[in-house]
Amino acid sequence: MSNATLDRVVKEIADEMIERKDRGEVATYIPELAGVDVNSFGLVVVDSSGHIAAGGDADTSFSIQSISKVFTFTLALGMIGDKLWQRVGREPSGSPFNSIVQLERERGIPRNPFINAGAIAVTDAILSGHQPRETLGEILRFMQFLSGDSSIKIDESVAASEQRTGFRNIALGNYMKSFGVIENPVELTLGVYFHQCAIAMSCRQLAMAGRFLAHSGRNPSTGFLVVPPERARRINAVMLTCGHYDGSGEFAYRVGLPGKSGVGGGILAIAPGKASIAVWSPGLDANGNSRLGRDALETLSKRMGWSIFGA
Amino acid sequence: MSNATLDRVVKEIADEMIERKDRGEVATYIPELAGVDVNSFGLVVVDSSGHIAAGGDADTSFSIQSISKVFTFTLALGMIGDKLWQRVGREPSGSPFNSIVQLERERGIPRNPFINAGAIAVTDAILSGHQPRETLGEILRFMQFLSGDSSIKIDESVAASEQRTGFRNIALGNYMKSFGVIENPVELTLGVYFHQCAIAMSCRQLAMAGRFLAHSGRNPSTGFLVVPPERARRINAVMLTCGHYDGSGEFAYRVGLPGKSGVGGGILAIAPGKASIAVWSPGLDANGNSRLGRDALETLSKRMGWSIFGA
Amino acid sequence: MSNATLDRVVKEIADEMIERKDRGEVATYIPELAGVDVNSFGLVVVDSSGHIAAGGDADTSFSIQSISKVFTFTLALGMIGDKLWQRVGREPSGSPFNSIVQLERERGIPRNPFINAGAIAVTDAILSGHQPRETLGEILRFMQFLSGDSSIKIDESVAASEQRTGFRNIALGNYMKSFGVIENPVELTLGVYFHQCAIAMSCRQLAMAGRFLAHSGRNPSTGFLVVPPERARRINAVMLTCGHYDGSGEFAYRVGLPGKSGVGGGILAIAPGKASIAVWSPGLDANGNSRLGRDALETLSKRMGWSIFGA
Amino acid sequence: MSNATLDRVVKEIADEMIERKDRGEVATYIPELAGVDVNSFGLVVVDSSGHIAAGGDADTSFSIQSISKVFTFTLALGMIGDKLWQRVGREPSGSPFNSIVQLERERGIPRNPFINAGAIAVTDAILSGHQPRETLGEILRFMQFLSGDSSIKIDESVAASEQRTGFRNIALGNYMKSFGVIENPVELTLGVYFHQCAIAMSCRQLAMAGRFLAHSGRNPSTGFLVVPPERARRINAVMLTCGHYDGSGEFAYRVGLPGKSGVGGGILAIAPGKASIAVWSPGLDANGNSRLGRDALETLSKRMGWSIFGA
Repeated sequence: MSNATLDRVVKEIADEMIERKDRGEVATYIPELAGVDVNSFGLVVVDSSGHIAAGGDADTSFSIQSISKVFTFTLALGMIGDKLWQRVGREPSGSPFNSIVQLERERGIPRNPFINAGAIAVTDAILSGHQPRETLGEILRFMQFLSGDSSIKIDESVAASEQRTGFRNIALGNYMKSFGVIENPVELTLGVYFHQCAIAMSCRQLAMAGRFLAHSGRNPSTGFLVVPPERARRINAVMLTCGHYDGSGEFAYRVGLPGKSGVGGGILAIAPGKASIAVWSPGLDANGNSRLGRDALETLSKRMGWSIFGA
Repeated sequence: MSNATLDRVVKEIADEMIERKDRGEVATYIPELAGVDVNSFGLVVVDSSGHIAAGGDADTSFSIQSISKVFTFTLALGMIGDKLWQRVGREPSGSPFNSIVQLERERGIPRNPFINAGAIAVTDAILSGHQPRETLGEILRFMQFLSGDSSIKIDESVAASEQRTGFRNIALGNYMKSFGVIENPVELTLGVYFHQCAIAMSCRQLAMAGRFLAHSGRNPSTGFLVVPPERARRINAVMLTCGHYDGSGEFAYRVGLPGKSGVGGGILAIAPGKASIAVWSPGLDANGNSRLGRDALETLSKRMGWSIFGA
Repeated sequence: MSNATLDRVVKEIADEMIERKDRGEVATYIPELAGVDVNSFGLVVVDSSGHIAAGGDADTSFSIQSISKVFTFTLALGMIGDKLWQRVGREPSGSPFNSIVQLERERGIPRNPFINAGAIAVTDAILSGHQPRETLGEILRFMQFLSGDSSIKIDESVAASEQRTGFRNIALGNYMKSFGVIENPVELTLGVYFHQCAIAMSCRQLAMAGRFLAHSGRNPSTGFLVVPPERARRINAVMLTCGHYDGSGEFAYRVGLPGKSGVGGGILAIAPGKASIAVWSPGLDANGNSRLGRDALETLSKRMGWSIFGA
Repeated sequence: MSNATLDRVVKEIADEMIERKDRGEVATYIPELAGVDVNSFGLVVVDSSGHIAAGGDADTSFSIQSISKVFTFTLALGMIGDKLWQRVGREPSGSPFNSIVQLERERGIPRNPFINAGAIAVTDAILSGHQPRETLGEILRFMQFLSGDSSIKIDESVAASEQRTGFRNIALGNYMKSFGVIENPVELTLGVYFHQCAIAMSCRQLAMAGRFLAHSGRNPSTGFLVVPPERARRINAVMLTCGHYDGSGEFAYRVGLPGKSGVGGGILAIAPGKASIAVWSPGLDANGNSRLGRDALETLSKRMGWSIFGA
């Protein structure tokens, strides 16, 4: 595969997606998301040689929302290792992203780190008695370090809106607290959670941040080992089985790559050994995943032959 | 990778597994399964060159049980294509293999083809007005064709026991029938279902049968295209997300390969582009999956570097 | 209260109900029920003196369906007493009449004798190794004895239709069998169940049959003690909390009398110490209970001051 | 029935209960409840003539907890009438008092006013834009008015403990808020809720407060009409079907009276037309209802012939 092929495929996809009319619905639960242009589309692929293929709105910042869960999950594994599994599982949930039913049946232990309850439990593990401000600083610096871009910021107005309207997440946090799964004061844990979801990044920054997952835990440009190879594989495995809520099976079936979506319309996808990919289109499908983002990744995976399930 | 490496790794694993004491519990719901020696262990790997590495009880027949679901699913996709998705989903279930709860919530449509309800719906699609005997003949000939071994048989005493005691599967079948998801008389569909689960195969036969999934739908020895490449990828994707019931996330996390387990203790696993693998150890974990089978595959995947989630 | 008052109130209600247009939907799942005239309405009240007030189609036979559950429950308590509670509970279900979800959570024990699963378990207790024909004869003779009318019969065409289409009940039976809650062969138990539901009675016959529940277990005309007083109270209690599926709270709230509905549009209601009441109107509400039947009972209870919850 | 009979029966029961060893477990989730003497027992019956029969610790105050739900429900019906039913149902829940599962299925509408979620929704309806302090004052004055005792108080230490540890109730409140069922700020509604549960009353005060429910809405001493007769009946109906969480069927079956329990070990029961009854014994059964309280009421109902389900 030459750089030229990748560049061409990315350009084709970006061109095709601009034409699409069936773009899904932009999330409307907070004004900051509702105001985003549904016609936005960005796609960036960084391959193992460091070559970057970019299409569409590659440098426009969007709210990464649940994509942040990949990175806090990575941080938590680094901080407390397998003890993390005492408070969160790693099985697909078979239910929507914000379901509380499963928590009642399984005594407050969320099914996996990528549904809201699970990510709140992971955030609580990272917070672990520190000041929210310190923890948030650490998360943000981790994103900046991974992307090689210190300009990445939290969108405070998004965070404030989430905090004002996030009743279901407050419910999830308190519910887990009632089982002792949350250790810090719920409002502190949720404060960090709402802010990490409000990190704003472009496709370029996000694709750069995901490189360690595509390359056995190592940043291929700097050679720095972010996580051991086995951990990178395992994070990819959890992304594959749980990264798209109740649409995870569909994503695996169509795209064939580990990925994590956010309600802001972004998806981070990993072609192990080959590339880190970020796509953004704010229109969502019924499961809360980016519709065109998914389609773009399906096409990319097919044209590049990148499916992990075979040539 | 040389043949010698693979041979050595398979031998090491077989030797290690013979020593293991914590072998799980053999399924006891029918006498034919309960009587199997818990100390049995077999492992066979067939790589892309056709080289076969075998360890332990590689040629002992066992009841493949739910592993048959991979092959009836393949047959059904061949017969009716994407229309199959009108009566079965492709999302992980988040519940045990024989749960009926999800069916009530989703109006009789099983979540995926690899839970019991889903496999019954798939079998019903294959039966489709034919005589059970014909359909069973077709399933059996498909297995013989894929393995290149016409000696494969149905164990009639297992089938008879299943039919006598399979009240929960009868419940699932009738429940789906009440929603119109089952089209044939329930007892005919279940007759075929119970018999396909009672197919007896050795690890060698099973690994041979799985080759098309490892090689883009093609039998690498004969060159015959069993399914188009995209379909092979998609079957692997469903195996990865749904192949181990409510332990699918765990299997992906530890082993990193698409796989399908059976309550007889067998697992078929696929390393795309590399190998088809069958393992058998009749002791089960709490999710009904072979405990040592899983461990053996985890070790194999690690030592051979075969995880689909990265090196 | 004079006979004249009761006669007048019953006549008023019958007249009012004839005018009603919003009659609900007749059950359509079998042709025999679908063919019933939605404009039918009958009401019969038998008070403690034996006085009978009848209005509308008081002598037209209809399919009593789930109202039969009251009588098989009574029979089962007579045969095995409190041992019955080992296989069925006595709590409201919080779910529709034919839900299977609760059975999975509670390991095959139905919540109460008045949902389908519970009534099947009760029927199984009565069958208890006998021939279905004998058991059915016993149920039928019990109904004839209670009503003082030996002409009561089973409608065989209704029974045959139920048996042909009752996939969900077959599912419930087999599901309970998988937990060991059903002891007889499922098809025998269901055979009895489908036939008991197909008993055809008029409002007059039904009101007569219910007298023992209104009068401390005693038939006030013959003086015969059908059940001890405490048992009559307890049957009434279960009717109050569970007699209308997921509309039981609503029925208690509006009518204030123990009652049991059937999908044929009948309701048996009991005013303890005062009267046995049967009403019939085949149009059903969303919970599967007779809409006008419920309204008629609400009016009757109010005008006669019969609510058990106070004057 | 003479006063002497009632006095004797109440005395007998109090004597019998003092001997009982199997008293259940005192609630331990807050220190104030955990510290209560498990051997406490009180019983007070006020009949229609105003005669009071008292046994045991009739004048010891205890935390009425969920019994308060009867009175806030009464207040809410008075304030907004049938509009209350837009935000709470009146069906038994079929689940524990603090279950959140049902709320997800039914989009935030609690099943009835007597489970925690329902009572929080009712409290929110009463609060309705007022200051929590005013609303609490109103609730407290209502209790004082009904009991004819202005010394009734809120136990502030109980309220403070509930507020500190009530994570599950906070979860319920926020969860309903996410569906728009709660209109006031959640913390205000919960503040009122936690305080109303912390009202401390004796059996004597509680039995006095319940008189209007036994006498068609009227206080028989003062002649004051608290609620119209139909409303009193309806409140009794909801108590009968929903007053003991997932033990409501059992209570109806055994006791045969409308009743409402609290986790402090109190039960208010109503014999319509006959008496208002309060019992207290702090040991609880598995459903969170007073074990000896229930037994005492069962005996009282039997010996006095007060069951609403027949003589």
